[in-house]
Amino acid sequence: MFFDPLEGLARQDLENLQGVRLRHVVSQSANSPLYARIFEEHGLQADQVQGLDDLPRLPFTGKEDLRASYPGGMLCRPMEEMVRLHASSGTTGAATVVFHTANDIQTWADLVARCFHMVGVRPHDVFQNMSGYGLFTGGLGIHYGAERLGCLTIPAGAGNSKRQIKLLRDFRVTVIHIIPSYALHLATVFDSLGVNLEDLHLKTALIGAEPHSEQIRKRIEELYGVKAYNSYGLSEMNGPGVAFECPEQNGMHIWEDAFLAEIIDPVTLEPVPEGEVGELVLTTLTREGMPILRYRTRDLTRFIPGECPCGRTHRRIDRILGRSDDMIIIKGVNIFPMQVERVLMAIPEVGQNYLIVLERQGYLDQFKVQVEVKSEFFVEDMRVLKKLQDRITGMLRDELLITPKVELVEARSLPCSDGKAQRVCDLRGQ
Amino acid sequence: MFFDPLEGLARQDLENLQGVRLRHVVSQSANSPLYARIFEEHGLQADQVQGLDDLPRLPFTGKEDLRASYPGGMLCRPMEEMVRLHASSGTTGAATVVFHTANDIQTWADLVARCFHMVGVRPHDVFQNMSGYGLFTGGLGIHYGAERLGCLTIPAGAGNSKRQIKLLRDFRVTVIHIIPSYALHLATVFDSLGVNLEDLHLKTALIGAEPHSEQIRKRIEELYGVKAYNSYGLSEMNGPGVAFECPEQNGMHIWEDAFLAEIIDPVTLEPVPEGEVGELVLTTLTREGMPILRYRTRDLTRFIPGECPCGRTHRRIDRILGRSDDMIIIKGVNIFPMQVERVLMAIPEVGQNYLIVLERQGYLDQFKVQVEVKSEFFVEDMRVLKKLQDRITGMLRDELLITPKVELVEARSLPCSDGKAQRVCDLRGQ
Ligand SMILES: [Zn+2]
Ligand SMILES: [Zn+2]
Repeated sequence: MFFDPLEGLARQDLENLQGVRLRHVVSQSANSPLYARIFEEHGLQADQVQGLDDLPRLPFTGKEDLRASYPGGMLCRPMEEMVRLHASSGTTGAATVVFHTANDIQTWADLVARCFHMVGVRPHDVFQNMSGYGLFTGGLGIHYGAERLGCLTIPAGAGNSKRQIKLLRDFRVTVIHIIPSYALHLATVFDSLGVNLEDLHLKTALIGAEPHSEQIRKRIEELYGVKAYNSYGLSEMNGPGVAFECPEQNGMHIWEDAFLAEIIDPVTLEPVPEGEVGELVLTTLTREGMPILRYRTRDLTRFIPGECPCGRTHRRIDRILGRSDDMIIIKGVNIFPMQVERVLMAIPEVGQNYLIVLERQGYLDQFKVQVEVKSEFFVEDMRVLKKLQDRITGMLRDELLITPKVELVEARSLPCSDGKAQRVCDLRGQ
Repeated sequence: MFFDPLEGLARQDLENLQGVRLRHVVSQSANSPLYARIFEEHGLQADQVQGLDDLPRLPFTGKEDLRASYPGGMLCRPMEEMVRLHASSGTTGAATVVFHTANDIQTWADLVARCFHMVGVRPHDVFQNMSGYGLFTGGLGIHYGAERLGCLTIPAGAGNSKRQIKLLRDFRVTVIHIIPSYALHLATVFDSLGVNLEDLHLKTALIGAEPHSEQIRKRIEELYGVKAYNSYGLSEMNGPGVAFECPEQNGMHIWEDAFLAEIIDPVTLEPVPEGEVGELVLTTLTREGMPILRYRTRDLTRFIPGECPCGRTHRRIDRILGRSDDMIIIKGVNIFPMQVERVLMAIPEVGQNYLIVLERQGYLDQFKVQVEVKSEFFVEDMRVLKKLQDRITGMLRDELLITPKVELVEARSLPCSDGKAQRVCDLRGQ
């Protein structure tokens, strides 16, 4: 039924396994220059971590630690045992680099294969991978998983829409891996080639690598006539294969035998109550070459409470709701631009752009939101505008739990550079 | 000593193995729609091919057969057994597609690993692959070979020169796979980054995917402070891993346990005498999913006679000398533009461009070569030019065995479109 029996392991057994693996990974980590130093700074002995209960003893690891240990300061085995390296792009500054042993590559492929199998992909499927290959983990990571499962894999890579569609049609592709925004674009090319959905044999889309809403998923499902499943991963934790939706399409099972997951308040660094939104923190439990302890992903999500009807015991996380590095703290309240956006974009009168302005008046912080109003609604009648303003204020207050000052402005009047809107303007100084 | 003991197999044993494998692959091929039809057209039964002596009974396969059998007409096993597909680029018309089973991928990786090992690459090496990944075979084909050997592989992919150099330096890369023309370009970027050869740890370059001269190899060796080894492959025969230079740097050993090689006269289709130039014809001996029989590669080369001091028994082919599709037949003589080019480019007075013009006068074909002369040599004195003209005519006659009519023209006077010179102008009509 499951690709790996571990997927259905009783919760207590899973946690016991995590405890054993955590102890092992902490003792291994101590062999890396970075963790040797960090443990020493914290007066921590690796053998003080005997199980899950000792997790809070471990310091967090951040992207800055990965950068500072560039190029090889996080390896806990000799470089000769490494067989693969992936790196974040970036030509300036130190890139984030992750090394893998042969076993790590194997384990990663197994985790990705588990994701494919979970949503019904089988060896007879024809799979087209539209992620870029190379140092980016989405290409090779997904590729090895599909190969592990035994699909016919078409390593199409990114771009070249006409060829993508030709491959989809000619090889009767049944499963695709595609970035959501590219999926929306690619669908617009179908018409120009005279290709219809009926010419294709698609049934499943694996979508990941960028956050997207439920609406986007629905749209992709309609455009391609498929079931679309959300994928979560980050290169620091291999890449794809960290968490993946099951057929219930209600949250992504995080593979807890391989990744120990916590969700913390990004300010207090304490765990949030079960079900509440916070920052996802991950510890690798099986990686040999370069384990990472309590890595602050900066991705905001929540554990979905309760058991999943699919029978898998691994907890589910919600789709990524934003980044903790975007977080605004005002009057002691944490606010994310994504929350403001979600409220505003549901209001028909609101135009394309908005701007969050943070000001200080005396000792008091002010939270102001400038909102573009579509020209057809930007009328002379001040009473109409006042009503709209009150409505927006109320909706934002319900979401954010503080009352913003809302200003309505004309369409296309807010700053916008390089086509990319500025979302937050912090005038509070330091 | 060898990665695979088969590399040193006694010649007679190797040929016996080829005979057994040929018989097997022919019987398997008969299961594919294409070969079932071809065998029937030729009145051939698969069991009529019992060994190497029966090779001439088999018809040749051409690129046109691959195109005509698109997308799956050359498979001799069910599509479900295929795990990989590679395709030539081309968005219009039918692409050339090759399918692989899991065993085929494994065998391919073994062959590439053999190439790496032959030139001294070992598991402790750090290998940067600068070939494009995806449907192009140079990326994944080389990648799997390096992984099979156990190197630390950096899947850099093509382009992004600054990042390539940063990776070379920061990860102390010892081995690179690079296209010769890109190697020359990349070296020009070193200076602008303030990187010297002394900052690098390179020792070996694997160069392939495009024909190049001995001079280019020497230049790459100087620029990078490495030994550079020539690689030969084509996507129809997997990709890289068909033939590769040994440390002698005198011809590429063709892995004859996996590929049965012939060199034929492209006109008579008969074998050329040992050591003479002709078209390379290859038969896959180990491929399960999509065997190809007597494939006309259109690549021109020769077997290098004699045994190689390295002890490998697999015959060597010379670097690729041109393409048989470029071949000109005039007065019953086969001429390749590359031959004309080699002669002309060794003459100091000759400029950048030349043009071969084929004309018919009455019933007689005329072979004319227009040659640009560098402006400093294009003097008023007709006697000087006449002497140059006679010298060029004599040198071309010595190479081509027919006497061309040579016309000297001014520098930059010959047609040149899109920066790419036109080399042959055939005015003979049909
Ligand atoms: Zn589930
Ligand atoms: Zn040799």
